[in-house]
Amino acid sequence: MEKNLIYQQLAQFWNTGMPFNQLLGLTISKFDAKESEISFVWQDKLIGNPLQKILHGGVTAAALDLAGGVVAAANIIEQLDDLSPEKIQQSLSRLGTIDLRTDYLRPGRGESFIATAKIIRSGSKVAVARMELHNEQGDHIAFGTGTYMVG
Amino acid sequence: MEKNLIYQQLAQFWNTGMPFNQLLGLTISKFDAKESEISFVWQDKLIGNPLQKILHGGVTAAALDLAGGVVAAANIIEQLDDLSPEKIQQSLSRLGTIDLRTDYLRPGRGESFIATAKIIRSGSKVAVARMELHNEQGDHIAFGTGTYMVG
Amino acid sequence: MEKNLIYQQLAQFWNTGMPFNQLLGLTISKFDAKESEISFVWQDKLIGNPLQKILHGGVTAAALDLAGGVVAAANIIEQLDDLSPEKIQQSLSRLGTIDLRTDYLRPGRGESFIATAKIIRSGSKVAVARMELHNEQGDHIAFGTGTYMVG
Amino acid sequence: MEKNLIYQQLAQFWNTGMPFNQLLGLTISKFDAKESEISFVWQDKLIGNPLQKILHGGVTAAALDLAGGVVAAANIIEQLDDLSPEKIQQSLSRLGTIDLRTDYLRPGRGESFIATAKIIRSGSKVAVARMELHNEQGDHIAFGTGTYMVG
Repeated sequence: MEKNLIYQQLAQFWNTGMPFNQLLGLTISKFDAKESEISFVWQDKLIGNPLQKILHGGVTAAALDLAGGVVAAANIIEQLDDLSPEKIQQSLSRLGTIDLRTDYLRPGRGESFIATAKIIRSGSKVAVARMELHNEQGDHIAFGTGTYMVG
Repeated sequence: MEKNLIYQQLAQFWNTGMPFNQLLGLTISKFDAKESEISFVWQDKLIGNPLQKILHGGVTAAALDLAGGVVAAANIIEQLDDLSPEKIQQSLSRLGTIDLRTDYLRPGRGESFIATAKIIRSGSKVAVARMELHNEQGDHIAFGTGTYMVG
Repeated sequence: MEKNLIYQQLAQFWNTGMPFNQLLGLTISKFDAKESEISFVWQDKLIGNPLQKILHGGVTAAALDLAGGVVAAANIIEQLDDLSPEKIQQSLSRLGTIDLRTDYLRPGRGESFIATAKIIRSGSKVAVARMELHNEQGDHIAFGTGTYMVG
Repeated sequence: MEKNLIYQQLAQFWNTGMPFNQLLGLTISKFDAKESEISFVWQDKLIGNPLQKILHGGVTAAALDLAGGVVAAANIIEQLDDLSPEKIQQSLSRLGTIDLRTDYLRPGRGESFIATAKIIRSGSKVAVARMELHNEQGDHIAFGTGTYMVG
């Protein structure tokens, strides 16, 4: 319960206080130690290829990286005994992406998009997440694998 | 000579006609069949982590993907006998990122950044490039490997 | 029906005619255009770390690569109209691994192991598969993503 | 000096006490905190594709993983103040591959092969190395990137 409140507050902070996420319109819509979800809608400024009107590969990578980072953050918090704001902030300051693989499966077309992440390795030092990007029609646009420093 | 002119025209088109590249300020500064170079300067909107003032991982991935895509494009053109605008456009329409791995080595701090790409596999169907991101002080911020569809 | 027979014959050929697969004891136990399965049992010669008695990372990579290659091969055959032995052999001669990512999630301990692959991108030139390695207790030892040349 | 002696002893132990390395004939020929080198010679049992007589992708991955693991091990030792055998063994017991990407650039043909690794990130918890595989004629067969747990 308390943790869900922490996740809500963090989601709100990250949705409003992260310049690049706001620039792209990336919004955390689910935040959990098992799964996370990022939503965003089509905007012309996200176009990578004007002839084909598809998302830039960097937009896809940014959404997948954020989804993976969110579920990794939840795994950090899940392992804390002390849930004071100071301890949470100190622990999250160690969070960072070590590496990210993105597989571009289909052209990034759609009106709205959802990036989801599932944790597949949760350790005290390193976490690994698998991510997917779908559009509003359920087309599977991209897959991703991210390794995150968590401790 | 003629090819260099084509590269110049393509660089100009991609620097001014790609919305997401313009949003991030990504500029092609070198375009060649062996190497390419992308430049961009720090802007607060590129911040991923406001507490630490570092680049969002999606910015790094976008710059590396563009650098790799440019050198892959040059490899497509290098294999063409017919250099008519129609043939070039048709050939480049097949260009697409298949997968991209980004290794985040150091925090993305700096005033200006250069992403470079070298071709390491140049085939008729698939090309592979290795990329690096450095800041103006020469700090090595990220490494990348990208596989591109070219035919 | 006919394709299933082809898959059976190919599995038999690859199980008995591929020296490195035989050296490791890798056996194709499922061969399909959607999924494939590779089985192998513990042998002391597969040890990478003698102090901990766990599989060498190269064994894991070899099993995942074979699983992905098998499902990619089935996707090549699935796209053929002409199922003559000559055409099949000619088409499969183009099969090759472009790149492979392996995520080592848990120590490779167990008595027997199963590597499974699912196709996530099936094109005329490139296929992408996701793989998993489990032991006989269902422990999830590794994840993989492979990109294959298929045309 | 003392460290070079430790590297020599470790190389000897790994060359003779690791069953899978011996099965493949992988031999550590250079062991340093900046670079490492693994040598092996062609053997028919390493064949992945009998029609084309080329190395199995798992052999390439195993050689690259070992090269990266060796240079990561040297980076662990480089950070130790106490070089007692107990401390070295305890520290190396934490070494493990987190993930490995292999890019297969050319068919694995040749009489002898050298895998080299360079460290590109050396931290107290995670190290990253880049690897290359060449044959005796200098043909560049594969590239790799490995992330290793080191603390």
